[in-house]
Amino acid sequence: MKTVVVRNIPRAEEATVRTLAGVGVSTAHEAMGRIGLMHPYMRPIWAGAEVAGTAVTVLAQPGDNWMLHVAVEQCRKGDILVVGCTTENHDGMFGELLATSLIARGVVGLVIDAGCRDVKALTKLGFPVWSRSISAKGTVKATLGAVNVPVVCAGQLVTPGDVVAADDDGVVVIPRGVAVDVAAKAQKRNADEEGKRKRLASGELGLDMYSMREPLAKAGLVYVDRPEDV
Amino acid sequence: MKTVVVRNIPRAEEATVRTLAGVGVSTAHEAMGRIGLMHPYMRPIWAGAEVAGTAVTVLAQPGDNWMLHVAVEQCRKGDILVVGCTTENHDGMFGELLATSLIARGVVGLVIDAGCRDVKALTKLGFPVWSRSISAKGTVKATLGAVNVPVVCAGQLVTPGDVVAADDDGVVVIPRGVAVDVAAKAQKRNADEEGKRKRLASGELGLDMYSMREPLAKAGLVYVDRPEDV
Amino acid sequence: MKTVVVRNIPRAEEATVRTLAGVGVSTAHEAMGRIGLMHPYMRPIWAGAEVAGTAVTVLAQPGDNWMLHVAVEQCRKGDILVVGCTTENHDGMFGELLATSLIARGVVGLVIDAGCRDVKALTKLGFPVWSRSISAKGTVKATLGAVNVPVVCAGQLVTPGDVVAADDDGVVVIPRGVAVDVAAKAQKRNADEEGKRKRLASGELGLDMYSMREPLAKAGLVYVDRPEDV
Amino acid sequence: MKTVVVRNIPRAEEATVRTLAGVGVSTAHEAMGRIGLMHPYMRPIWAGAEVAGTAVTVLAQPGDNWMLHVAVEQCRKGDILVVGCTTENHDGMFGELLATSLIARGVVGLVIDAGCRDVKALTKLGFPVWSRSISAKGTVKATLGAVNVPVVCAGQLVTPGDVVAADDDGVVVIPRGVAVDVAAKAQKRNADEEGKRKRLASGELGLDMYSMREPLAKAGLVYVDRPEDV
Amino acid sequence: MKTVVVRNIPRAEEATVRTLAGVGVSTAHEAMGRIGLMHPYMRPIWAGAEVAGTAVTVLAQPGDNWMLHVAVEQCRKGDILVVGCTTENHDGMFGELLATSLIARGVVGLVIDAGCRDVKALTKLGFPVWSRSISAKGTVKATLGAVNVPVVCAGQLVTPGDVVAADDDGVVVIPRGVAVDVAAKAQKRNADEEGKRKRLASGELGLDMYSMREPLAKAGLVYVDRPEDV
Amino acid sequence: MKTVVVRNIPRAEEATVRTLAGVGVSTAHEAMGRIGLMHPYMRPIWAGAEVAGTAVTVLAQPGDNWMLHVAVEQCRKGDILVVGCTTENHDGMFGELLATSLIARGVVGLVIDAGCRDVKALTKLGFPVWSRSISAKGTVKATLGAVNVPVVCAGQLVTPGDVVAADDDGVVVIPRGVAVDVAAKAQKRNADEEGKRKRLASGELGLDMYSMREPLAKAGLVYVDRPEDV
Repeated sequence: MKTVVVRNIPRAEEATVRTLAGVGVSTAHEAMGRIGLMHPYMRPIWAGAEVAGTAVTVLAQPGDNWMLHVAVEQCRKGDILVVGCTTENHDGMFGELLATSLIARGVVGLVIDAGCRDVKALTKLGFPVWSRSISAKGTVKATLGAVNVPVVCAGQLVTPGDVVAADDDGVVVIPRGVAVDVAAKAQKRNADEEGKRKRLASGELGLDMYSMREPLAKAGLVYVDRPEDV
Repeated sequence: MKTVVVRNIPRAEEATVRTLAGVGVSTAHEAMGRIGLMHPYMRPIWAGAEVAGTAVTVLAQPGDNWMLHVAVEQCRKGDILVVGCTTENHDGMFGELLATSLIARGVVGLVIDAGCRDVKALTKLGFPVWSRSISAKGTVKATLGAVNVPVVCAGQLVTPGDVVAADDDGVVVIPRGVAVDVAAKAQKRNADEEGKRKRLASGELGLDMYSMREPLAKAGLVYVDRPEDV
Repeated sequence: MKTVVVRNIPRAEEATVRTLAGVGVSTAHEAMGRIGLMHPYMRPIWAGAEVAGTAVTVLAQPGDNWMLHVAVEQCRKGDILVVGCTTENHDGMFGELLATSLIARGVVGLVIDAGCRDVKALTKLGFPVWSRSISAKGTVKATLGAVNVPVVCAGQLVTPGDVVAADDDGVVVIPRGVAVDVAAKAQKRNADEEGKRKRLASGELGLDMYSMREPLAKAGLVYVDRPEDV
Repeated sequence: MKTVVVRNIPRAEEATVRTLAGVGVSTAHEAMGRIGLMHPYMRPIWAGAEVAGTAVTVLAQPGDNWMLHVAVEQCRKGDILVVGCTTENHDGMFGELLATSLIARGVVGLVIDAGCRDVKALTKLGFPVWSRSISAKGTVKATLGAVNVPVVCAGQLVTPGDVVAADDDGVVVIPRGVAVDVAAKAQKRNADEEGKRKRLASGELGLDMYSMREPLAKAGLVYVDRPEDV
Repeated sequence: MKTVVVRNIPRAEEATVRTLAGVGVSTAHEAMGRIGLMHPYMRPIWAGAEVAGTAVTVLAQPGDNWMLHVAVEQCRKGDILVVGCTTENHDGMFGELLATSLIARGVVGLVIDAGCRDVKALTKLGFPVWSRSISAKGTVKATLGAVNVPVVCAGQLVTPGDVVAADDDGVVVIPRGVAVDVAAKAQKRNADEEGKRKRLASGELGLDMYSMREPLAKAGLVYVDRPEDV
Repeated sequence: MKTVVVRNIPRAEEATVRTLAGVGVSTAHEAMGRIGLMHPYMRPIWAGAEVAGTAVTVLAQPGDNWMLHVAVEQCRKGDILVVGCTTENHDGMFGELLATSLIARGVVGLVIDAGCRDVKALTKLGFPVWSRSISAKGTVKATLGAVNVPVVCAGQLVTPGDVVAADDDGVVVIPRGVAVDVAAKAQKRNADEEGKRKRLASGELGLDMYSMREPLAKAGLVYVDRPEDV
């Protein structure tokens, strides 16, 4: 592994990031063609946060958070820190002190494919974290990894500068090159949904609103009136 | 698989369902003889809900929520939608729009052996969901399943019209044929517990209240006074 | 297995326990040399509790909570009940009635490598539980285990009388023999951290505060300015 | 739970069972419409066995194999013993002695949603077992369950007398009522596959043999010649 | 943690170990009262080995096998190396070179609550390993642990010098103090089983051989003759 | 998602691939700096195979193997097929017929982050597969994915044309750009190990051969002679 720190990475535009922070993870992921979602084992440590940021990435060794300290210096306002590991690990690589540093630099959150600790303090600070585990297990600072190289985090490739959006539904990665397009499509989806919601609330059926009856019949769906007829 | 929708299923009586909604899942399950519980990986997406309803069932393919749209039409006031899959799946098959439809029809909740999304919106709507996962992963509408056939959901057989009760402790299935009897036994258990709670709160020991000392001694339990004596 | 109950176990000092209740699980575990943590699958059933107590231990059979009833009598003010199983089990071995008994005896909480039920009632009672699962599955009272013998709970050895501390970050076991020393070291760590927090909040980097730049360079860390240089 | 043993269950015809033993689990499952498969965590304890039998079912309590002893008496030549549990359990409920009894009665194998032990002896005996776990953990004989009631085993409903087929690919349940039909369809599938295998071995592409090119193009599939064109 | 190596540990007697190597893990565990089994996720990397040895123990950090190298020197003929970790880890801490060293010292096998690699070479060498995972992931040598202190391995406490026996059914720990007694009881169990096996093979039912009919009836077991009677 | 098939991908050199097929996965991964390993849940369906090939990649939808059929046409002699999914899936996406096609085209094996079936037939054919699961669950052909785009498979990024090597220890991805260098380093490692193996077999300790005694003492390792001294 190149034990390297890349400085001055290109980042997605601030306005695009802001838009993607507001559309919701489910919508952003649909707008991209139903890809880009991290594994659902990534959960927020407290409910209700909705953020998007430009990814500063870390590749860490199991049980070793040295590279997180290195990464802090590479973060700036509007970034989100994204940590992958070279192997499965649940240790508490991140806590209140690192969060304090990140807040001081304007970082909007942390996404870590490992453990997090100081949950109560982080909640009080209002610093959002999406992690695989909550664990008090402390880590060493003994082996190098890398900062701002492409990493796989919870099953998704994250290239530094990509947009990473997260809310109560999970975490999605929107590559920098498609972020503007995805943001526009996502906004359109949400606008479209508003009308659908009203029609459904009034009792209209999705079967009719989406014109599903014909394709269902074509696919062979049969209605019977009593269980004994099955 | 019969790709079928069964209409006009027989349902458990409304009064029985109401009783079972109030006794608690743990009590209902005990009253049935300690059976009928879904796997404990089924968790509520928000805490505090307590519901029971008559089951409308769905058998869905992995990553495909077409049959949920079909099922909505078969639901009526007091039902609970129960979704099993033909294979393990965690995708977000259900979200705000489907919930809006179910609320419009008077459905009391959703139990799904797969994923759910739009968690924040569902919480705001007060629509309770018990699911295996929370996942933003969208689904397709490509392959038929079935509605209102017996399905296995999280390890339990659910026959359409059965009572399904759910709270913070989990989800239990009470077959329609035994629901009246279980409801009565469960109410009796809760009444009995009230007295026990008071005696225990006053310091009486379960060992005495349940007359356990003799059977324990018979089974061979020995008391010693110092660790060295073990 | 010796089917035995040990009475009058030696316990860690009350003052030490009180100190350890206030330092946090992460800090206590670091002060011991980063050992003693239970597996992170042990989670609180409600957030925010912070307790430490002297362990009364139970070795239980799967699906059988007879020994918990026996253990209640051995508990006294300031104790914490710790339950291990002879084999993996998720059943709801503990609920409102047992909690009522433990509260009556001044027990500060429960740590159980199995399931817990009556979550809503336990939350209302303010009785804290750390468990592997939440499950309504009831248990029998058929087979003996042991009380106050050393048990392995969630991967950690717990000797009766040890201090067990728990909060939102997890559960840690502090052996009685080192508890005074660990309490002192943990308090010192927390005092030290206060200053660090302020420096980090003001924007100072951990890289500088911890003097990491030189060891990082020595270990071979390289900085480059553009991704193409990797 | 009805703690009951049902005698003289109706069973699928022997000739049908024999056919289903020879078609393979994958084919039988496809012939049924891609349903009926137990969870893939069910694995054979030794490779190569292929069996089908008429199900004698057991509902057991966790850590308790009393009902297996009861079930032996209900077994006859050509049966397969199928064990479900009231809750998740991995204990070694079955070993060499029970296998010796089943062999004496002409039972063709065991399918158990729990653990199995004496793996080496069972392999030497040539008695095939599909289980969730291998575990030496012994069980008690303390609590009743039921024999020959419908049970859920590894996610599938098994009604006594159903055909259960198992091989290295897994375990499938074929309800008695559809067994004749499924056996016929499965044989036809296998006959059809023979020709396909030869064409594919000679280099013909599935794209052509299955006429997939047109539907793929219709669905929007695009071919490009260099990665940069993506 | 005391970063310590304990030399000259007391060990169980060689004759006892030899006896326990021959009785089987399931029998040894029953003879102890159904305790002492490691979690069933511990699996042999090749089938058929049956060993018992005196435990030399290692407490290792995740992703760090430094202490294994230290432990080799403390091993002697008849020992078995037992490795626990301070936190969950699957990395390949052990491979062909370490095995070559252990073989040179007469060690009978390895039990490791983490990963193992070089599976093919270890199989060819005939060196038996029971591990949690198979993983090629290499480890560092950066952080101290301990050798020959009591460790928890796969849920069981192992004190240096204890007997650890392993076969295809799993791994069991027999404390040094009870090893002679357990060995004798296990031999008796196996002798008793021989007669039972013959009776069962001849068709006698366990129900009769173990006199279960009366206690079953007392517990409430009911026989019915047709499913409709349930 | 771009529903695209990329033709004529650049591939690593044949000679390099041949070298990497012979060095072993553990060694290749070490030579790269201990990165590139897929998750250890990827296991061979039969033991003993050792292969390396140039990756043809597939991104598939859960429960849908349409893209595998498309990918076959893009494979040529020396390739290895690598399948990632848009979401966690265990279904049997691959079996004997697809293997027959791949063998006809000279493909050396399959690596799939999902399920595989027809295990017995594949073993007889000698076609090696590394998969997450073995499952008879059949799949549909309904939704597009992509062929020869970069995919994440079992936690690792695979770019089409990369070398993927697999054996009993697992699966490693060696990016095309570093393959020549990694192959050379891996061969050197293996040559070096030969001498070490001999020294260790003769009884020399790793502690001495690797000169570990001094750094261990420096790190604080202490030797004591009796357990009581700990």
